[in-house]
Amino acid sequence: MLAIGDELLSGRTKDKNIGHLADVLTVAGIDLKEVRIVADEEDAIVEALNALRQRYDYVFTSGGIGPTHDDITADAVSTAFGLPCVHDAEAMRLLGAMYARREMEFTEARQRMARMPQGARHISNPVSTAPGFIVENVYVMAGVPQVFQAMVDNILPELRTGSRMLSRALPCPFGEGDIGTPLTRIQKEHPATSIGSYPKYDGIRFSTEIVVRARNESELEAAAQAIEEMIRSLRASRLPPGIGTDA
Amino acid sequence: MLAIGDELLSGRTKDKNIGHLADVLTVAGIDLKEVRIVADEEDAIVEALNALRQRYDYVFTSGGIGPTHDDITADAVSTAFGLPCVHDAEAMRLLGAMYARREMEFTEARQRMARMPQGARHISNPVSTAPGFIVENVYVMAGVPQVFQAMVDNILPELRTGSRMLSRALPCPFGEGDIGTPLTRIQKEHPATSIGSYPKYDGIRFSTEIVVRARNESELEAAAQAIEEMIRSLRASRLPPGIGTDA
Repeated sequence: MLAIGDELLSGRTKDKNIGHLADVLTVAGIDLKEVRIVADEEDAIVEALNALRQRYDYVFTSGGIGPTHDDITADAVSTAFGLPCVHDAEAMRLLGAMYARREMEFTEARQRMARMPQGARHISNPVSTAPGFIVENVYVMAGVPQVFQAMVDNILPELRTGSRMLSRALPCPFGEGDIGTPLTRIQKEHPATSIGSYPKYDGIRFSTEIVVRARNESELEAAAQAIEEMIRSLRASRLPPGIGTDA
Repeated sequence: MLAIGDELLSGRTKDKNIGHLADVLTVAGIDLKEVRIVADEEDAIVEALNALRQRYDYVFTSGGIGPTHDDITADAVSTAFGLPCVHDAEAMRLLGAMYARREMEFTEARQRMARMPQGARHISNPVSTAPGFIVENVYVMAGVPQVFQAMVDNILPELRTGSRMLSRALPCPFGEGDIGTPLTRIQKEHPATSIGSYPKYDGIRFSTEIVVRARNESELEAAAQAIEEMIRSLRASRLPPGIGTDA
């Protein structure tokens, strides 16, 4: 994924689209492998986009397709693909009709939202009409979260989804320092699973959420049972849960 | 910045460190130029780290320095710099003393938290002792937000900060479609400023926050006045605020 926008790098806007896309892709069985956040600068967008689109099956972008001067994603994507950036006829028609219905002027700025690389396919925008677009394996979407989410819903049916990754979350009252050694052993004994541990800190003590992932239900179950046995054994043999845990 | 962790890419954890670092650096007058998020995979971390550390003055990382098997940031940073990854003597002493005080076993897993590239400097961790570390221009910090934030506070005094970027946020009741054309003109007339517009959508209509940035107070003021004049002029001449606006 490529998130585009000065506002994300200045801290003014806290990104919500990365987490949303991560959730949706995980459920669909598609692994999100890398995210980059770059400024509204053509060179930065072009370079990141070219790196990502050559490396991965899909690239999803957010931001920079609105009507103002700092919205340059359409230009940058066109440059990356060596295509002319044009006012798409169908997008002009859709936007023109929408503004006509609302008795609003279809300003030059608003017409910017119809610009996209020549020949791009549309991503429908049920929220505010101005479409996203698709060029080869690159999906260009809006930065406003409600619009981004609607566009993601619209592209999902056409993506090739992998075999679903199953996952099980196991809350663990012990910190990573207590579970690190036995968890390493369990991971080695269950190589078809991916076991992650995510420390939580409530201001006083650490606990952990352990997540097992696998493509196969019985592999998942076996690893989860081993982890539950580890937690039982820690409870029985050592510190009371939650006391003296750490990360 | 390089945020490290499978949990960020699966959606299980919603990152909070990027936004925090962005806020802190902006206030300090340091421009955050790029963020990457990668998985807990050595090759991915090494490649991203080498790209970022050669391109930028500083690289800040979050995540992957805990005690479990999936915490491989210390190994990856060592590989990136061609340094051996060792149990740092001072970190072993600090952690050993902390666990001794708490009458807890200093397990092999916990000892992993003392590992870092040979010769790295420490970043003090007042929350949970295990230090972050610094190699050349790379600052390696924890992923748990409370610890990350404490470590950022500890490194800030040693960073070379730029001349402070001033900014002014101007709420605008009109959508980007209404302001795009005049705002482009204002940006051209005030080249020493950077003007961004950030659409907001409340479920019914769009409004905008316009942000002017400049290193110079009088440049900032001049551009802000031009924008306020634009908003007054839109109010007077067109739609009532908030009605029929769009993005």
